[in-house]
Amino acid sequence: MGPTALEGDQPYRTAYAADLSEASVGERIRLAGWVARRRDQGGVYFFDLRDASGVVQVVIDPAEVPAARDLRAEYCISVEGPVRLRPAGMANPDLATGAVELAADQLGVLSRSEPVPFIIDDRAEADERLRLEYRYLDLRRPRMAKNLRARSLAAAAMRDTLGRRGFLEVETPTLIRSTPEGARDMLVPSRLRRGDFYALPQSPQLFKQLLMVGGVDRYYQIARCYRDEDFRSDRQLEFTQLDIEGAFWGRDGVFETLEAVVQAVVERLRGVTLEPPFPRLTYAEALLRYGTDKPDVRFGMEISDLSDAFLKTKFRAFAATLEDGGVIRGFNAGKQEMSRSQLDGLATRAKELGAKGLISAVAEEGGTLRSQTAKHLSEFETAAIIEDLKGQPGDLLLLVADTAAVAAQVLGQLRLQLGRPDRHDDLSFLWVIDFPVFDEVEGGGLAPSHHPFTAPVDLVEMRERPRTAIAKAYDLVLNGSELGSGSVRIHDPEVQQEVFDILGISADESERRFGWFIKALRYGTPPHAGFALGVDRFLAILQQETSIREVIPFPKTQTGIDPMTGSPTAVDPVQLAELGIELRAGVDADDPDREDG
Amino acid sequence: MGPTALEGDQPYRTAYAADLSEASVGERIRLAGWVARRRDQGGVYFFDLRDASGVVQVVIDPAEVPAARDLRAEYCISVEGPVRLRPAGMANPDLATGAVELAADQLGVLSRSEPVPFIIDDRAEADERLRLEYRYLDLRRPRMAKNLRARSLAAAAMRDTLGRRGFLEVETPTLIRSTPEGARDMLVPSRLRRGDFYALPQSPQLFKQLLMVGGVDRYYQIARCYRDEDFRSDRQLEFTQLDIEGAFWGRDGVFETLEAVVQAVVERLRGVTLEPPFPRLTYAEALLRYGTDKPDVRFGMEISDLSDAFLKTKFRAFAATLEDGGVIRGFNAGKQEMSRSQLDGLATRAKELGAKGLISAVAEEGGTLRSQTAKHLSEFETAAIIEDLKGQPGDLLLLVADTAAVAAQVLGQLRLQLGRPDRHDDLSFLWVIDFPVFDEVEGGGLAPSHHPFTAPVDLVEMRERPRTAIAKAYDLVLNGSELGSGSVRIHDPEVQQEVFDILGISADESERRFGWFIKALRYGTPPHAGFALGVDRFLAILQQETSIREVIPFPKTQTGIDPMTGSPTAVDPVQLAELGIELRAGVDADDPDREDG
Repeated sequence: MGPTALEGDQPYRTAYAADLSEASVGERIRLAGWVARRRDQGGVYFFDLRDASGVVQVVIDPAEVPAARDLRAEYCISVEGPVRLRPAGMANPDLATGAVELAADQLGVLSRSEPVPFIIDDRAEADERLRLEYRYLDLRRPRMAKNLRARSLAAAAMRDTLGRRGFLEVETPTLIRSTPEGARDMLVPSRLRRGDFYALPQSPQLFKQLLMVGGVDRYYQIARCYRDEDFRSDRQLEFTQLDIEGAFWGRDGVFETLEAVVQAVVERLRGVTLEPPFPRLTYAEALLRYGTDKPDVRFGMEISDLSDAFLKTKFRAFAATLEDGGVIRGFNAGKQEMSRSQLDGLATRAKELGAKGLISAVAEEGGTLRSQTAKHLSEFETAAIIEDLKGQPGDLLLLVADTAAVAAQVLGQLRLQLGRPDRHDDLSFLWVIDFPVFDEVEGGGLAPSHHPFTAPVDLVEMRERPRTAIAKAYDLVLNGSELGSGSVRIHDPEVQQEVFDILGISADESERRFGWFIKALRYGTPPHAGFALGVDRFLAILQQETSIREVIPFPKTQTGIDPMTGSPTAVDPVQLAELGIELRAGVDADDPDREDG
Repeated sequence: MGPTALEGDQPYRTAYAADLSEASVGERIRLAGWVARRRDQGGVYFFDLRDASGVVQVVIDPAEVPAARDLRAEYCISVEGPVRLRPAGMANPDLATGAVELAADQLGVLSRSEPVPFIIDDRAEADERLRLEYRYLDLRRPRMAKNLRARSLAAAAMRDTLGRRGFLEVETPTLIRSTPEGARDMLVPSRLRRGDFYALPQSPQLFKQLLMVGGVDRYYQIARCYRDEDFRSDRQLEFTQLDIEGAFWGRDGVFETLEAVVQAVVERLRGVTLEPPFPRLTYAEALLRYGTDKPDVRFGMEISDLSDAFLKTKFRAFAATLEDGGVIRGFNAGKQEMSRSQLDGLATRAKELGAKGLISAVAEEGGTLRSQTAKHLSEFETAAIIEDLKGQPGDLLLLVADTAAVAAQVLGQLRLQLGRPDRHDDLSFLWVIDFPVFDEVEGGGLAPSHHPFTAPVDLVEMRERPRTAIAKAYDLVLNGSELGSGSVRIHDPEVQQEVFDILGISADESERRFGWFIKALRYGTPPHAGFALGVDRFLAILQQETSIREVIPFPKTQTGIDPMTGSPTAVDPVQLAELGIELRAGVDADDPDREDG
């Protein structure tokens, strides 16, 4: 990074802090940045000067430069002087510039600072709400600066990769048509058509498909999307996704391209070279082996189905489960050395997750099991468990007898609880493929598991055997988090109509919700496929952050509040009137009881 | 562009249309795309196959491939066969692939098309509303495809240039705080805080300044912005700007960076190498010489002030104007050879533009003027006019005597009318600098000419001589269009407070509108400066389009309607109730009388 000139000839700086090294010793340098960690030693002041590049030590003698007496933390200053080696024994090997210091003989205070509400330092942990209120100070922390830089580099790596492959970046509109049932749409009242509303897009889905109809061959966009969710876990009202779509394209093309994109990002941010292709796992296999459709495969503890070993069991609980169409499954949690009460805790957790119970057993020398259940099991059954779960003496084996769905859910969660590594050093990417067309919902009914433009593998199967029908849908999973999903789309309007029909969307309803889109499909739509990757989540994992808020420059709280600006806020009723709307009776923007961040 | 594989092994194509050339003769090739311009000749069918790369001729014999009989315009197909030279005399030199054709012996119809509402062809001009209703077909036209591609290339050129210079791409929020007087804010009702609203950003201005406070050294973003304007001329509710900002930075740094960005874009789109630095013109000079702050300098016809020559004039009209503090100005429109009625037309136009009158004169051999006014002018005055305007015999000279503002407005417009070139082949970039702090408004009052965070050159001058005070604000102008504007910002909260004061914004009001922002300035804000460039307008000029709608993938009409999706639309009252709002009495979303697109 080179020096930057101010208007006229007066530059604020001639170098960045990180430029200083032993090679600079003897040069006169001017730096600009912020005062950090000031301390006095024998009447001389030392402080770190922080700028966007890093930190360097500055020494200044207030006898020589009286203005230095006024310096406080986070003052924005410009200093000039010779670079010199630090005295013997005073070098700081933890700092890139730790061998040198700037002996400032000139000082300009560009702007003072009030006392800061928290120390600008990665070591000090401030309350998150305070950090968000003073986000402009929080962003000065090296960790946050690093996250901003990583995000910018990641976006550049994505764009470079896709640009080289001939993808066009196309901006789709963000004031779009609301779908009548789009309960999660955020709305924007129209002033020129009072009483009508635009919606903010939950994704560019339909517009990117229209681009395919329009002859765009390969599309991408790093797109802002909006979803008015109740804030569960780690969501934001606005989020960013890398959105791609291609015509005359299929799943393998999507995978190959996404793998190249992910590889470029990981290379840029982690310096690690991935080796595509990523492994692929069917949805069914993922659920069986890991109890989830987004398995964390950085560790083993795979789940096995033991049902076959119990077909003739005398153990009532197991027999009843199998008779009801259920399963016996389990995994080997390894040498956990748990106390009785820790094991009870696991059982409680299993029940919270929906299991009727949890069977725990420790494999013993000589092929036996130490377990309250041991006495109900035949020798053959005990041997089968130990063999199928590869139990070594001392291994903790966990079993659930329940419906397939509950067994998967419970064992999948316990597996994560017992085996999941804390850190994100390893990156295990995985494609989950062959998703079902429908998910089973509470009460045994069926609901479409993807958006209704997803192509089924087989229409007849979808109609006749909906519970087992497979869609051309796929997810990308990293370390147990879903990074994104995609599908081959329906390009035939008649197939689309039939799919609506099977999904239980009437012709009237589909016309009302998607009529304008179905119309477009009637004009020579090419086969097409695509994907959307959640940028916030991807970055959080790569930066080893536990919340996406750490990689979003100005996030909101879990309840959608920005503590820095106070938004959302009340609006002048006159302005609302111009938009043709008003607050409903009883709604009070200043109501202190309403949900707050 | 290489071939793309379908799931499994079946590719839809092995090449793009534009890949075919004489070098491909004899190869078996499979192409995928759309049927255009089908014609029959002696029982054999010829058509152009259009894909994203271009067009190539396909020949198919329905006797051999019966399915070809069903082909209609815009069917989406895959065809395969050998490439061969066109018969002697049948080559099409206007077409890149015009020497060859694909002799298809295999055909797959991927998707049929209903009859299209307009021909997909640059030569056919369809009604714009129809084009927008079927935008997905409109985008198949080569001209629109070219515009999409240009936009993507331009964005890449911007990003590459800024990335190489160490700029970080940072995403600022789009659900932000509404300012109480933000009448042009588009609003988004909050569901979790019913009765409160977010606003969509008119620009990332305050957030990018906060990034500077936060220690980001160089920022950029290609940002979606929103302004709820009454649609004058060529605006959209949502638009895109290249937004940049830098800390420890000033005007010259901004100019040098923007020049590099613009140069990269022009190089990529036009293949022309610009030679920065761009000329700079003060606001005062621009107004004097071109009658506007966004001069088109591709042609001369500069305006001269002739007032000094008339200080002792006997011509009553001129004398009275000068006595009232007005000016006499004019320009040489060259050899226009206008009829009497054409000249009357000019005079009428001048009056429409606000002038009391227009004096036209034609320079004659021997230093005289042919004009109805000639008899009122002294020999000295006549000679001065001819000399100052460099009048050659036959040149049309146009003069206005009026206030400086009216003279500038009228002569500036007439200059454009008479001299402006139709086409955009030449690109004349220009910086306009030294903008006034205040603009004079209707009735002689003053209003701030830029946003209130713009640094004045001199606070005392701003307070004491507001009419002539200059701000550190600048515009980039291309061919008479303002491409964008920027400024050095205020970084001292006390100066900011003082500027609010001079602008007539009370402490209460500034606290209410910008309090959260002023607070941030108190924590060591670095000096900073920036710019925002209108991407839509820039692209339209580079692509020689007269409307920005031609370079926006899915624009809305002048009244904010999307004829393709029908948005904005009515919304279920239940959904509104969830947001705590309802339509005002008398507002009816289905009212057929309301303003429509």
